[in-house]
Amino acid sequence: MPFESTDADAMLTADDLEVHHRYDLGSFRVTEHSIIEFASQWDPLPIHCDVEVAREGFFGGIVASGVHTLAIFQRLAAKTIYSSWAVIAGRRITDIGFPHPVRGGMTLHGVATVTDIRRDRSDRALVSTDGRLTVADQAVLTLRSEMYVRRALT
Amino acid sequence: MPFESTDADAMLTADDLEVHHRYDLGSFRVTEHSIIEFASQWDPLPIHCDVEVAREGFFGGIVASGVHTLAIFQRLAAKTIYSSWAVIAGRRITDIGFPHPVRGGMTLHGVATVTDIRRDRSDRALVSTDGRLTVADQAVLTLRSEMYVRRALT
Repeated sequence: MPFESTDADAMLTADDLEVHHRYDLGSFRVTEHSIIEFASQWDPLPIHCDVEVAREGFFGGIVASGVHTLAIFQRLAAKTIYSSWAVIAGRRITDIGFPHPVRGGMTLHGVATVTDIRRDRSDRALVSTDGRLTVADQAVLTLRSEMYVRRALT
Repeated sequence: MPFESTDADAMLTADDLEVHHRYDLGSFRVTEHSIIEFASQWDPLPIHCDVEVAREGFFGGIVASGVHTLAIFQRLAAKTIYSSWAVIAGRRITDIGFPHPVRGGMTLHGVATVTDIRRDRSDRALVSTDGRLTVADQAVLTLRSEMYVRRALT
């Protein structure tokens, strides 16, 4: 469960994390209304915003912006795990894939696995994570990210 | 300038695009209020949402969520170029870097360069693009993306 506290002493440091540990991030239900609302602001293309145009297009209907799908993953991960980690900053996301489209009415389920912890300095480590969102066990988002996390004071 | 029309005949196909062509995507000013508002919904970590905690942290103040920074890039690119391309779907984003933090009050300037056009089928091509957001010529976001774009009917 996430810490609600922002007390630095309550945070997990990189030394508390374990490679191969897999986290359940919970679920998020997306509606067509929210897909259109997000995309109207951040990715205003007809395939994400225009019901009529999207119906005639490749997917036969509105599909979520990839940025929206990523934002849903980040929300789940922030609320369940990153909020309890002593995060310094995200460094990069090395690969984001969108293997299947996200449509209104879907419930996306998130998981994240720590894949590497590189202790590059005495006070911080670079933590690599593989994440994914699935709908009925079919992946709709895959990503690999790296973030700096504080180490325990010794 | 972007096409406002969604008439398929008015769209640029992959055959109209050129490798090495560089597009100016215009600018977007971000406020600390909007950073907190975005992150409260999609990346609710103290470094993005909590002024007091962020002030004591690594950056000495609120910094934008990487997802927010990516969304700003996507908004600029969608409005200036992707809206006039016959986009089928985004395939993946292969590398997103966050070389410098984004803070309230900054004006982000976007550019995108077509780096590859792979005509993999008679009716579509995979178009690769390098994009970046800069503030006073310092990069705050870099990314490489791939999307499927329709080819001209022959």
